[in-house]
Amino acid sequence: MITQQLINPKSIAVIGGSNNKLKPGGKIIHNLKDGVFKGELFVLNPKEDEVQGLKCYRTYEELPHCDLAIIAIAAKYTEITVKELLKKGTKAFIIISAGFGEETQEGKEIENRLADLMDSHDATLIGPNCIGVINENYSGVFTTPVPKRDNSGIDFASSSGATAVFIMEAALLKGMRFNSVFSVGNAAHTSVEDVLEYWDENYQDGNSSKIKLLYIEDINNPGKMLRHAKSLIAKGCKIAAIKSGVSEAGSRAASSHTGAMASSDLAVRGLFRKAGIVYCSSREELIAAGSIFTYKELKGKKIAVITHAGGPAVMLTDAIAKNGLEVPEITNEKSKTLLEQLLPGSSVKNPIDFLATGTAEHLEKIIDFIDNDCDNIDGMAVVFGSPGLFDVEEVYDVLSHKINTCKKPIYPVLPSLINAANEIENFQNKGHINFSDEVMLGNALAQVWKQTHKPLPYDFELPKMDKKAIREVIDNSEDGYMSSAQMMAILDAASIPRAHEKVVTTIDNAIVTAEKFGYPLALKVVGPVHKSDVGGVSLNINDQHRLMAEFNRLRRIKDASGVLIQPMHKGVELFVGAVAEPKFGHQIMTGLGGVFIEVMKDIQSGLAPLSEHEIKAMLKSLKGYKILEGVRGSEGVDIAKFIDVIQKVSALVLIAPEIMELDLNPLLGNSSEVVAVDARIRIERI
Amino acid sequence: MITQQLINPKSIAVIGGSNNKLKPGGKIIHNLKDGVFKGELFVLNPKEDEVQGLKCYRTYEELPHCDLAIIAIAAKYTEITVKELLKKGTKAFIIISAGFGEETQEGKEIENRLADLMDSHDATLIGPNCIGVINENYSGVFTTPVPKRDNSGIDFASSSGATAVFIMEAALLKGMRFNSVFSVGNAAHTSVEDVLEYWDENYQDGNSSKIKLLYIEDINNPGKMLRHAKSLIAKGCKIAAIKSGVSEAGSRAASSHTGAMASSDLAVRGLFRKAGIVYCSSREELIAAGSIFTYKELKGKKIAVITHAGGPAVMLTDAIAKNGLEVPEITNEKSKTLLEQLLPGSSVKNPIDFLATGTAEHLEKIIDFIDNDCDNIDGMAVVFGSPGLFDVEEVYDVLSHKINTCKKPIYPVLPSLINAANEIENFQNKGHINFSDEVMLGNALAQVWKQTHKPLPYDFELPKMDKKAIREVIDNSEDGYMSSAQMMAILDAASIPRAHEKVVTTIDNAIVTAEKFGYPLALKVVGPVHKSDVGGVSLNINDQHRLMAEFNRLRRIKDASGVLIQPMHKGVELFVGAVAEPKFGHQIMTGLGGVFIEVMKDIQSGLAPLSEHEIKAMLKSLKGYKILEGVRGSEGVDIAKFIDVIQKVSALVLIAPEIMELDLNPLLGNSSEVVAVDARIRIERI
Repeated sequence: MITQQLINPKSIAVIGGSNNKLKPGGKIIHNLKDGVFKGELFVLNPKEDEVQGLKCYRTYEELPHCDLAIIAIAAKYTEITVKELLKKGTKAFIIISAGFGEETQEGKEIENRLADLMDSHDATLIGPNCIGVINENYSGVFTTPVPKRDNSGIDFASSSGATAVFIMEAALLKGMRFNSVFSVGNAAHTSVEDVLEYWDENYQDGNSSKIKLLYIEDINNPGKMLRHAKSLIAKGCKIAAIKSGVSEAGSRAASSHTGAMASSDLAVRGLFRKAGIVYCSSREELIAAGSIFTYKELKGKKIAVITHAGGPAVMLTDAIAKNGLEVPEITNEKSKTLLEQLLPGSSVKNPIDFLATGTAEHLEKIIDFIDNDCDNIDGMAVVFGSPGLFDVEEVYDVLSHKINTCKKPIYPVLPSLINAANEIENFQNKGHINFSDEVMLGNALAQVWKQTHKPLPYDFELPKMDKKAIREVIDNSEDGYMSSAQMMAILDAASIPRAHEKVVTTIDNAIVTAEKFGYPLALKVVGPVHKSDVGGVSLNINDQHRLMAEFNRLRRIKDASGVLIQPMHKGVELFVGAVAEPKFGHQIMTGLGGVFIEVMKDIQSGLAPLSEHEIKAMLKSLKGYKILEGVRGSEGVDIAKFIDVIQKVSALVLIAPEIMELDLNPLLGNSSEVVAVDARIRIERI
Repeated sequence: MITQQLINPKSIAVIGGSNNKLKPGGKIIHNLKDGVFKGELFVLNPKEDEVQGLKCYRTYEELPHCDLAIIAIAAKYTEITVKELLKKGTKAFIIISAGFGEETQEGKEIENRLADLMDSHDATLIGPNCIGVINENYSGVFTTPVPKRDNSGIDFASSSGATAVFIMEAALLKGMRFNSVFSVGNAAHTSVEDVLEYWDENYQDGNSSKIKLLYIEDINNPGKMLRHAKSLIAKGCKIAAIKSGVSEAGSRAASSHTGAMASSDLAVRGLFRKAGIVYCSSREELIAAGSIFTYKELKGKKIAVITHAGGPAVMLTDAIAKNGLEVPEITNEKSKTLLEQLLPGSSVKNPIDFLATGTAEHLEKIIDFIDNDCDNIDGMAVVFGSPGLFDVEEVYDVLSHKINTCKKPIYPVLPSLINAANEIENFQNKGHINFSDEVMLGNALAQVWKQTHKPLPYDFELPKMDKKAIREVIDNSEDGYMSSAQMMAILDAASIPRAHEKVVTTIDNAIVTAEKFGYPLALKVVGPVHKSDVGGVSLNINDQHRLMAEFNRLRRIKDASGVLIQPMHKGVELFVGAVAEPKFGHQIMTGLGGVFIEVMKDIQSGLAPLSEHEIKAMLKSLKGYKILEGVRGSEGVDIAKFIDVIQKVSALVLIAPEIMELDLNPLLGNSSEVVAVDARIRIERI
């Protein structure tokens, strides 16, 4: 929990404050004295009487009470310091020092003890190994640049201090403004999730920033992140985030850096998709998404590209069109009137090209036309640079004015970082962010659109199932792969349709069962886990003669304990799987079966539980979706029934979290049924 | 052809030169007077006696002979000007004026006449609608910035003048240097292909720049581009290019811009892949690829990531690993010695993290270790920014020195664009390019590696086939879809294995043929083009009874003129197709058949003719490649025979360019044969 003393301290003490501004303990005092902080500022340093013009205290006894302590001393001394200050009633701590869990096990243990101290004293600790906190009340970082705070700017939380600096540097140069910065470092006590919780619980419509950017190395509590991200988004906020360390090598890197644990990229993407967080992979992508958030909301996917220079407009149009947005041709009557008002040779078909010699007045007419007279356009990008002949201030003034007053969002691409450097700076000083590369804008715009325009439902009902029966099977089964009988019991309790089947061990029983089920039949060896690999599956058995031959063959396979007999089901091979992700719950995976999943890797996944809406979106994202609908006259699958099975699996693993892996593979689906023909379930109690 | 007078003019006249530097005709004189041009500079302007300190001539008669004329007057006066100057022996022209083919049909006609004039006088025209030319002899552009020329810099050619400016602006800020710039504008007489030809034919090892960047809106002569790009790359050059206008909307934009024609993205990618040109989609990607070219050559795909700040290293590692390069763990003995020399808490496992307080000396030791003691590392990326406490000059000096002296390439990521602005500038002034975003570097590095590390063979033999027989069939067929008999004749002449077949119209003939071929049989309706859609295909016919029933059914289908009987072939459904691409020749497409091509869109393509090497790479890039090899015990395909069929198709279309479309769909492939079971060929004489 984040205390009020961290957010709005009446007094701050810098422990280890220094006169040397090349040191963190010196620079942070310098930054705190920038005029934002209105309370009392103290310094503790046993070797100084005065630090940067402030009285310096030499002992904890002398030091007056402070709401917030910013600690810049060696790791090994931090614990005693925190204890002393807790005694004096300090309720907020920022430890900027490094040398904790990111370096040694001992450091990790100090972190754990510090976190316990915080909890037992209702206090908050930010860090260690962080750059600090910036908000409307103080500039508590030891790094530069310290962004000039702006209520309309973005809220930013970061696992890594240096990365926070680099993101700010790149963002400030583009004109981004910041409302607050939380660098949580090793997150010994306060994680990015906790910051999100704070933003959510203290959100005030009209006062709070609506834009949140996150750089995350470790998601320790995915549930918390999901809950507060969804809640913030429901309140009208936009969130974009990087979760780094998603590759194996990358997670090795992240873990050596802040002791972060690996979580699979799939799980992270699933979480972000569920929450409505825009997934970013780089600082530039994060900044681009955040920049788009600062413009008016894009209400549809049709974009007008307006330019005085063809090339970037063509590349932007390519990028937009490749990524699922549209640059529709404009042919309405009023476009003819517009064309007459532009220079001869201009084009208004979209991209709208008003030529190298086009003026501010032309641009104004074009923007007004798009804003007022084009129902089929939802937003516009304006590309305007300078070949260096004359200044473009007037054009950028029009652009700035129109961005503020038009109904539709206008994204500025001002590429002349040298020729129009001053004009771009003036433009940015009016509160706008510049997209200097048009393709970066196009890609980010498409990503933001895809990931935010259809928020997932917050609440939904899960299918009913016999919880008691499910728990009974689980509680009576041992760790490891479940028996066929146990699986049947669980599927039945979860109302997941399955093939009828019987395990037989003698040829006589096989014949009796075959007559009961009726031909054609499928036979499968019981015992070996990877049945196909040992030739343990025999299909389309049409008569008693083949039944006997195949029964005998399967019985002879190594480790065979019996033979399973099923009536043959027909249909498209489908797949549903679940796998437990540490901390994230279960990842549900689905796709077409056989080579589509094994070779083509055409798999979609989402975090359990899944809503019907999410499952529909997952299925539609399959490359092979049309096969489910039926291609070229072949029978399709009852998609509603398929969705039902997937949702039941996603509900089952909530009731039985001991399920580490579950595979329904294949399910067979046709226009009247979707039936699990083979299954594998592994239980493990952690 | 580019004349020597364009490259190294002894005299230049600016036609329409002006005292007003806000006008192109004024600015270009200003730029030409920057001290690079050593020859005579004249100005023609009927209204002035002196322009920017130069004597100004009022008539063509007065104007002395000039090698190169740079023309900055209204489009309609250019033709007469060119004629007058040709009379006086001028052999090179740059027309910077706009208002030609990009705006009107009349303008296009002027361009054509100007091109004819050039050809009949052995002269060169650059433009119109361009910014001009910069090389070692003169700065002939009317725009800024004019990059300070550098022999070791890159050669750059661009279709669009404004885009050239924007690319230069972004590139110069990162430290890129330029050797020459050719802005070809509407390319009335000199295209990007022609510039490439010039670079190729005048390439001097040791003197010429080895790096070429291209921004292209129109590829008018793909063959020329391929020839000279391959030749330059064979000489050791590196080329990266953007071809814009690859989406439908984008090509509408490009065509309104410079009158460029659409060429399919597939064809462009095929051409680039064949040539070894790195395909880029944005200015930033082009600059990143060009920047990588300026560093030592990466000889393998194993990268060490070195950093003092974890976050960017983690993101870079993710980007590298996601894109097919590797960041292998380092565990050798000497790494232990290195670790002892670094600060406690450092990690040398790769990413190598030497902590926020790491020094220049530490960096030096790490780089030397990677360069000398790590056989499993091919290159390194060093991420080093600044939190703003102290300057990082010393670190960047080490980095600069090591970049120059190490055997392995070192890519610098200097993210602190604000805190280390001066140090980065100094670093760039030593001739290095900075990658400010680590993920952009990772992505570009992977792209460059993928597209350049294995050059395609320059020469290869095509399979032998009966050209005379092929031409005979083609010459005797009318435009439109070929008959079954004609297709059989062509496939046989090209030695492409096909199913035996016979078209029958009576039930008696069907029975006789069936007995000759032997059951099982396939029956197909003859007449309708889309057979499957009308239920015109019947497979696995096992006896005479079903033969008769199916024959009668197929005969009753609308437009049926007969029934084709084939023996059933078994195997994996495969596909080979060819489609004529305007100017590019034929695009050959291949993949697995059926839903893999229709639904999964798992298609690879290349420009004809294809080498065995290219086809292998295409097949291996199929997502479903493993199915060709045989998955889980199912029979695979004789891949050598499949390659042979694909190569024969690619050779056939060279002999018969009238083939607009060719589909072998399906081919059936098993471990002993690959046989075309159905085909469709459309002929059109253009």
